[in-house]
Amino acid sequence: METIAILGGTGKEGMGLGTRWARAGRRILIGSRDAAKAQDAATKALSDAPGASVDGATNEDAARAADLVVLTIPYAGMEAILSAVRAACAGKIVVDTTVPLRQFAPPVLDAMPAGSAGATAQRLLPDARVVAAFHTVSSAKLHKFGEPVEGDVLVCGDDADAKAKVSELAGLIGMRGIDAGGIDAAAALEQLAAVIIGMNQRYKKKSIGVQFTGI
Amino acid sequence: METIAILGGTGKEGMGLGTRWARAGRRILIGSRDAAKAQDAATKALSDAPGASVDGATNEDAARAADLVVLTIPYAGMEAILSAVRAACAGKIVVDTTVPLRQFAPPVLDAMPAGSAGATAQRLLPDARVVAAFHTVSSAKLHKFGEPVEGDVLVCGDDADAKAKVSELAGLIGMRGIDAGGIDAAAALEQLAAVIIGMNQRYKKKSIGVQFTGI
Repeated sequence: METIAILGGTGKEGMGLGTRWARAGRRILIGSRDAAKAQDAATKALSDAPGASVDGATNEDAARAADLVVLTIPYAGMEAILSAVRAACAGKIVVDTTVPLRQFAPPVLDAMPAGSAGATAQRLLPDARVVAAFHTVSSAKLHKFGEPVEGDVLVCGDDADAKAKVSELAGLIGMRGIDAGGIDAAAALEQLAAVIIGMNQRYKKKSIGVQFTGI
Repeated sequence: METIAILGGTGKEGMGLGTRWARAGRRILIGSRDAAKAQDAATKALSDAPGASVDGATNEDAARAADLVVLTIPYAGMEAILSAVRAACAGKIVVDTTVPLRQFAPPVLDAMPAGSAGATAQRLLPDARVVAAFHTVSSAKLHKFGEPVEGDVLVCGDDADAKAKVSELAGLIGMRGIDAGGIDAAAALEQLAAVIIGMNQRYKKKSIGVQFTGI
């Protein structure tokens, strides 16, 4: 069975994605700096995914045991966390979901030497196939486990096979993956996510999502 | 009757917007460096908007006579054109639609000191109320005059009344305007447009558009 590690997976986004993929039959390893905290999160995820396979581990152990690694970590923690899992991620698909905000309301992105969190992840993990995706997926919607999320997920990265694989993961939660270009397009995807966060604040909504027409 | 000047309006985007707004009862002035070329474009627009009010003029004359000014000009021409119309635009709403590409396939944006074409326009026209919008509107769809364009238009700028007014202009062509934040959000909107241009190329489509759910 395919094993997906979700590093920093105890937060809302990681728990939403992990629980959804567990319900779809994938083996999930929730990673955290703190293995006990990760195990607590796994127990909670299992309550929403009865009979599924969900375990907790340190980020390092989770990355090592996984076929595919998902990052739901803050941009500020990226360098330390990815340095520690670099060898474990070699050759693997690594999905970066980071929306690198230095301020939440109104949303302001971090200044990033690599131009985006996605490109930063690829630089820090040169031997991994980094794909950036899921930036605009509402965690409120993710947590309504009885309903498909719907809408589109823009997927970018420099490896076409890796992007196709990540589009399949989007399909597992009811969403359509769309190839948005190389990893440098992550800048546009992260900025779009920040715009949507601002729209949620301005219009007092919780789960604005994006959809493309004519494709 | 409200008069809308479309500077650099002889191209596909300008002709599409101008013809649509003319059909919706607005008075349109198509601006160009060359008044004769502008008049030819006006004649062509009238063939798609019988009985409407469309005239051609130099960019300067069009801006001076207008209540509201729309820019469909290349980023490379922005400094020269906007310097010439700065006084004419004072106090007016100026809508920048520029997607500042330095390469079309694959799409690559210009490096811009102000961070975006929209912010550049606001710097060059400090006395105007600049709103950036319509970046992602497919000109192929715009030119199917018998059909509403549909979909959403992200609208950004520092003046709330100006944004509301530009959302009304979106409504005239069948689209919904959504407030996407201050003028600095233009960077995200222009990058999203570049991503969509890339998607059209990758998926061999002509008119991919964007729509937001949950709002």
